Amino acid sequence: MSTLLESYAAGRWFRAADEGDPLLDAATGEEVARISSRGLDLGAMVRHAKETGGPALRALTFHQRASLLKAVAKHLGASRDEFGALSTRTGATVRDTAVDVDGGIGTLFSFASKGVRELPNDTIVLDGGLERLGKQGTFVGQHIYTSRPGVAVQINAFNFPVWGMIEKLAPALLAGLPTIVKPGSQTAYLTELVVRRIIESGILPEGALQLICGSAGSLLDELTVQDSVAFTGSAHTAGILRRHPNVIDGGVRLGVEADSLNCSILGPDVRVDDPEFDLFVKGVIAEMTVKAGQKCTAIRRVIVPSSIAGAVVDALAAKLARITVGDPRNPDVRMGALASLGQRDEVRKAIEALRASSEVVVGDLDGGALLDGDSERGAFLTPLVLRATPGAVEPHNVEPFGPVSTVLTYDGLDEAVALAARGKGSLVASVATHDPDVARTVVLGLAPWHGRVLLLDRDDAKESTGHGSPLPMLVHGGPGRAGGGEELGGVRAVLHHLQRTAIQASPDLMTAVTGQWTTGAARREEAVHPFRKSLAELRVGDTIRSATRTVSLADIEHFAEFTGDTFYAHTDPEAAARNPLFGGIVAHGYLVVSLAAGLFVDPAPGPVLANYGVDDLRFLTPVKAGDTIGVTLTVKQIKPRNSADYGEVRWDALVTNQDGSPVATYDVLTLVAKTLPAA
Amino acid sequence: MSTLLESYAAGRWFRAADEGDPLLDAATGEEVARISSRGLDLGAMVRHAKETGGPALRALTFHQRASLLKAVAKHLGASRDEFGALSTRTGATVRDTAVDVDGGIGTLFSFASKGVRELPNDTIVLDGGLERLGKQGTFVGQHIYTSRPGVAVQINAFNFPVWGMIEKLAPALLAGLPTIVKPGSQTAYLTELVVRRIIESGILPEGALQLICGSAGSLLDELTVQDSVAFTGSAHTAGILRRHPNVIDGGVRLGVEADSLNCSILGPDVRVDDPEFDLFVKGVIAEMTVKAGQKCTAIRRVIVPSSIAGAVVDALAAKLARITVGDPRNPDVRMGALASLGQRDEVRKAIEALRASSEVVVGDLDGGALLDGDSERGAFLTPLVLRATPGAVEPHNVEPFGPVSTVLTYDGLDEAVALAARGKGSLVASVATHDPDVARTVVLGLAPWHGRVLLLDRDDAKESTGHGSPLPMLVHGGPGRAGGGEELGGVRAVLHHLQRTAIQASPDLMTAVTGQWTTGAARREEAVHPFRKSLAELRVGDTIRSATRTVSLADIEHFAEFTGDTFYAHTDPEAAARNPLFGGIVAHGYLVVSLAAGLFVDPAPGPVLANYGVDDLRFLTPVKAGDTIGVTLTVKQIKPRNSADYGEVRWDALVTNQDGSPVATYDVLTLVAKTLPAA
Repeated sequence: MSTLLESYAAGRWFRAADEGDPLLDAATGEEVARISSRGLDLGAMVRHAKETGGPALRALTFHQRASLLKAVAKHLGASRDEFGALSTRTGATVRDTAVDVDGGIGTLFSFASKGVRELPNDTIVLDGGLERLGKQGTFVGQHIYTSRPGVAVQINAFNFPVWGMIEKLAPALLAGLPTIVKPGSQTAYLTELVVRRIIESGILPEGALQLICGSAGSLLDELTVQDSVAFTGSAHTAGILRRHPNVIDGGVRLGVEADSLNCSILGPDVRVDDPEFDLFVKGVIAEMTVKAGQKCTAIRRVIVPSSIAGAVVDALAAKLARITVGDPRNPDVRMGALASLGQRDEVRKAIEALRASSEVVVGDLDGGALLDGDSERGAFLTPLVLRATPGAVEPHNVEPFGPVSTVLTYDGLDEAVALAARGKGSLVASVATHDPDVARTVVLGLAPWHGRVLLLDRDDAKESTGHGSPLPMLVHGGPGRAGGGEELGGVRAVLHHLQRTAIQASPDLMTAVTGQWTTGAARREEAVHPFRKSLAELRVGDTIRSATRTVSLADIEHFAEFTGDTFYAHTDPEAAARNPLFGGIVAHGYLVVSLAAGLFVDPAPGPVLANYGVDDLRFLTPVKAGDTIGVTLTVKQIKPRNSADYGEVRWDALVTNQDGSPVATYDVLTLVAKTLPAA
Repeated sequence: MSTLLESYAAGRWFRAADEGDPLLDAATGEEVARISSRGLDLGAMVRHAKETGGPALRALTFHQRASLLKAVAKHLGASRDEFGALSTRTGATVRDTAVDVDGGIGTLFSFASKGVRELPNDTIVLDGGLERLGKQGTFVGQHIYTSRPGVAVQINAFNFPVWGMIEKLAPALLAGLPTIVKPGSQTAYLTELVVRRIIESGILPEGALQLICGSAGSLLDELTVQDSVAFTGSAHTAGILRRHPNVIDGGVRLGVEADSLNCSILGPDVRVDDPEFDLFVKGVIAEMTVKAGQKCTAIRRVIVPSSIAGAVVDALAAKLARITVGDPRNPDVRMGALASLGQRDEVRKAIEALRASSEVVVGDLDGGALLDGDSERGAFLTPLVLRATPGAVEPHNVEPFGPVSTVLTYDGLDEAVALAARGKGSLVASVATHDPDVARTVVLGLAPWHGRVLLLDRDDAKESTGHGSPLPMLVHGGPGRAGGGEELGGVRAVLHHLQRTAIQASPDLMTAVTGQWTTGAARREEAVHPFRKSLAELRVGDTIRSATRTVSLADIEHFAEFTGDTFYAHTDPEAAARNPLFGGIVAHGYLVVSLAAGLFVDPAPGPVLANYGVDDLRFLTPVKAGDTIGVTLTVKQIKPRNSADYGEVRWDALVTNQDGSPVATYDVLTLVAKTLPAA
């Protein structure tokens, strides 16, 4: 008998007392492992996550959590071949394994990178700008995101045992949420191996990651208001989860990614000899055959102009004839097995349902030749293309989770969009077109019905990642039938795990809460210029009020001549007088900020290394000859880098004139050393 | 018999055939109106919204829809007194009416303003920046928001017949969603009057707004995947809606704002004679008495340090003694009636439940004196303060929807936060403190459990809008028991009505889809300088490639001297050589952008009126003496203003050096006239 998979629960590996159920190799039918969760203390797992894992994660900043992800990614990369070997037993070819294993590790790297670049080195995230709630500026509003003191449960499908776990795990960990993983049983042996490698690395704090191999039983009964469940699987199971009392009445958040009848549309502009025709056909073939079509993003509906449908079917037939099906251990095999014989039965049932309104135009219902594979014990199925009769209902409702697509025809873009919408909400649509007008019309028509839309043309084909690949930086999910959830999308996925809260306060207390200087808060002026302070010494609110400078007409004229910016508003009094906004000669905006720097900069070498940028510069009051300007520069935000001996300091710059009116506002971005340079 | 309220359905006012049920004046018990929706064709309403209202709204840009909101707000403002008079019949005092009627109209103005300032003059919204998906830049990603082709249904509570409708209507209309309003029956006569005034104004496109007076019957049966329901009311009804098959399996989106046991916390730093003590007590009194406590945001739990609890109760008693209760027609009345006798029964039941673990410490269970009011037929209830025994459960679970609050005590900030969290998720919490450390600790502890947190201190008290007031620019909603929904929050509320979709395309097709020039897309260079084109003539992609200029050491030295910016990296070769980022003298960033303007500006008077700002300026490669720079300036976005004869043009600026390396990237923001000035 094979190994019984273990669960990782409350700090130890748990082995069920019973023998468990067998999990069979997809291609050979040999037993790979057995699975059972009988006796697992689910309540203890939830408590362990909340009491041990959560507090440990939330004590870290987003940047620190990102560095954990990076370390895990590197660690898993070292075991990549071990994962690849085991992946073969799921029926996956080398190409399929790249999608699952390398895709998963890449997702970890991507979130690690996004976490550092797009999230603060802090435990809260500010959302949007400051809202002034009173005219005097003593009452302000700011939205913030904070981590929930709960647990993130993920319930996954069998088709991506590695990527499916990681695409949910990475954003949850980054958000400070401990995770309990429940993989699809059929391929759980691969998930278990990856979790084992993560746990034994000791990189993650204890309690941050737990694993249930086998049934999740009554896990939802243990969850409460700060907890969430992310589910990928069938609409049927999604419905059961949605009906759970803790979801309906208990405040448990549920995200679903379920059935999706994704489509690919061939634009009406595309002729048979256009590059887009070939790209379209290749895309359909790829989606039918990668993972033997067992992808929630695969193309189920091939929507083409009726005038060209015959050519599309012929092209599909020609290309499918070259797809060899068989045991993925044979390197000449292009498409492996479905995950199990049971899964193949499901697909065959779906094909039968589709045949009510479609006929098979490519492929053999009784199965084709196998290249090295056991047709009895292996879950093989050769690719099948159907063509729907006009008005067919089934192609929009039946999801064959295998290498099966149905061709539908349209006349006019409106019909193409309407056909796509009949899927009632899908994860992804793709459109092959090189016509900008077609692109805009179709994409804007498809967008409300989809989480992702891919435009395929000769220009992006070389770099395109294809219809079926969710990317870590783009949202994955779809409305309606696709579940209504949203995953990935970079920081968006992290924010879904956080609670958004509007904070109302005085500027001083708002500064205390957010750790970022808020307009209207106290400014701290000291004898020492803040440019003389190291990152460690600087405090939010540190301020320099500059001396003033009168801007003369000669300054403006000279600046125009020196820079070559002789725009009439700076050089031609009569024309400038006719300008509706200025009514006379004004100083260049760039002159104002240049002079402002001259006023606030402390020139000698010190911890301030560079001004690397400026944000949100607005010119509010024109500066005329004779006006006198001064600058107030205040430390707004201090963002140390974990991986460098300096950090970023954002300064609030306010340039005012002799009347106290604001002339310009902007953020000055500098790099500041963590310590003072040696004397 | 009084008037039977009408529904506005499928383009006409509908009157039920039956007599309907009576709606009684809250203070006098007289019949105000009757209500029935019997015979209403709900399916026709949904079709009318989708086929007539939706397309008409979505043909408009966000700015055009915002101008409709503004026109409606102005129109309703003219009928304000009429609404106020009718509002009295709901039991509302003048102050209560201001919250409902003026608050509602103000919310329309606020969304009108946000729509113009924060949304594009277009039908789609871009979300986040461009994602580079391939190394060559030929494949890029961009998230967009589009309007759903569905209907927004709102099901409201009785307590805010005007504001309750408008806070949902304004963002939905701005999002291009037609709305069906179903007000709480008890006060539907006021909602009906407001809808009548809106409809007769003819401002909104037909089908954009419909009204159901009476039961919504089987309305949810008519809804499908692109539709949404926003519900405010009891957790019980919310549970029924959540269980509807069209919500569970049909993809109808449901937002809920339900029961909420909001709390106000007195900080441990506050002494009896601190201003925050008085502000805290005043806040509790206001929340108990405004709308007679019939606010989902009212303070139900008063959480105070145990050492000061007696003083708090005494202060509440002293202030409540001055709250006169009675018929709101009497101007001396400070608190009016509950909405109905039935509602009063509910509150009395809740009080009974609370008394299991709390005793009444202020107020009279048998009711106090009335100032002008019928104690038999009017739904009066005098304010009541209870004090909970330690460990009491009921205060965290029972919501008395009237002038009732319970005092709970804590020792230590952790306990205060833990008590607040026992509400299992609330709309709002407030904290009276003047201590920055208390503020940060409590707010970050409360945030995951709340949609809004108010910090009250001496500095913001004068301008504070108080604990109970949702503001249009801040999110309203809360996790868990509070329903898990989110409303308001300015543009955030609009985005909730839109579908977010990741678009993947080549830069050229991405530009076609978004209408905004995308990095990597074609640049159009013509003989005429784009500064010579009016807003109407300019096209996204129009480009000027400048001449080049070599930056000399003399230029750098001169700029340092002229501006006063003598930072050592520009002036001191030896010190600059030691700078880890530069390794020698570099040009000022401000010099680079000033010279760049000199290179791209076309100086003669023309349609370009002003450079009003710069966004996202980043210095990427240092410019050293002898380097030669040039600029490529491309029209990125054109945003005409509906209310001015000019618009905003955003230009992509790319400064490169002699090697083609990027020196600086930024967006230049200009105002450009819609037409060329007269010759």
